[in-house]
Amino acid sequence: MSDGTLLVFSGPAGAGKDSVLIEYLKKKVPGVWKSVSYTTRAPRDGEVDGVDYKFVSVDEFEKLIEQNFFLEYARYGVNYYGTPKSYVDEHLKNGDIVILKIEVQGAEQIKQIYPHSIGAFIVPPSLEILEKRLRERGTETDEDILRRLNIAQDELAYSPNYDYHIINDRLEDAVDDLTAVIRALQLKK
Amino acid sequence: MSDGTLLVFSGPAGAGKDSVLIEYLKKKVPGVWKSVSYTTRAPRDGEVDGVDYKFVSVDEFEKLIEQNFFLEYARYGVNYYGTPKSYVDEHLKNGDIVILKIEVQGAEQIKQIYPHSIGAFIVPPSLEILEKRLRERGTETDEDILRRLNIAQDELAYSPNYDYHIINDRLEDAVDDLTAVIRALQLKK
Repeated sequence: MSDGTLLVFSGPAGAGKDSVLIEYLKKKVPGVWKSVSYTTRAPRDGEVDGVDYKFVSVDEFEKLIEQNFFLEYARYGVNYYGTPKSYVDEHLKNGDIVILKIEVQGAEQIKQIYPHSIGAFIVPPSLEILEKRLRERGTETDEDILRRLNIAQDELAYSPNYDYHIINDRLEDAVDDLTAVIRALQLKK
Repeated sequence: MSDGTLLVFSGPAGAGKDSVLIEYLKKKVPGVWKSVSYTTRAPRDGEVDGVDYKFVSVDEFEKLIEQNFFLEYARYGVNYYGTPKSYVDEHLKNGDIVILKIEVQGAEQIKQIYPHSIGAFIVPPSLEILEKRLRERGTETDEDILRRLNIAQDELAYSPNYDYHIINDRLEDAVDDLTAVIRALQLKK
């Protein structure tokens, strides 16, 4: 394989995107690279700048937009999220599987730029369980949680755009699912 | 998912199709069913009638051809191989992943009948290793081995028709590859 594959990884907040990715990345599978997004949101407990996200101010982010630094960016709630373009292209040229964790709006933009990209959508077993997880996270107010649940419902409507659906019931199973999807992509001719 | 997926599994003799499948099937993954082919060739040591193949005479096989019993059949060397249709359709209707282990000619027929079928091709690391494996099998004469190597070379030319390429270098890795491909297919929307 000369060219790599772009794997767009999305799912509603609280579905467990981050946990699944973190566990997957611990395996350090050769030929797989996760893009680090830029964001203006505040780091959560334990998040490391440059690893989980590159945390920047709104001013910095808007300057980067002007410089055409981003492959795609989205304003999600009050925060910006964006994907730097040069690293992605470099790793694709290298034949890697490039994982982009992005929101559903960003995913639509990506599909236009990279029509051969593959989408994996992670879903919570139910909206009730999603709410429970958001509350347990303990980082958000009731109002935040309600807003996120509404957004989540809207986001779930995008699931038919994705090639693979991973139900995050047990974290371990969801990680195995993602592992299988990526390994299969590496075997694609 | 309402309808299942047909997975066509091919590869030159000696590439390890059977070993990989046997190891995979030991996992007894729910929702996966392997079709049992009919053949007129003699059983090899340890092969069980009705499990590895259904072993029939040439007369019986030709009668089944007349009865339209087969989804596809091929004459490969001096032997017939065929896939019974009714079981395959039943399991597809049931939403299963249906594995068909068939030769490359049969695979072409299948693709015409089931355009959405997925192909996995298992390849030996090299033709030299393939020859070594055929000799170690010890069931074939020198002439047989030469004929098989020629056929293998012809068969390798069909590999671009397949969606996934599994290199059988270490059996364990090849089994993990097949496992990943099938798990990913089960996550396909």
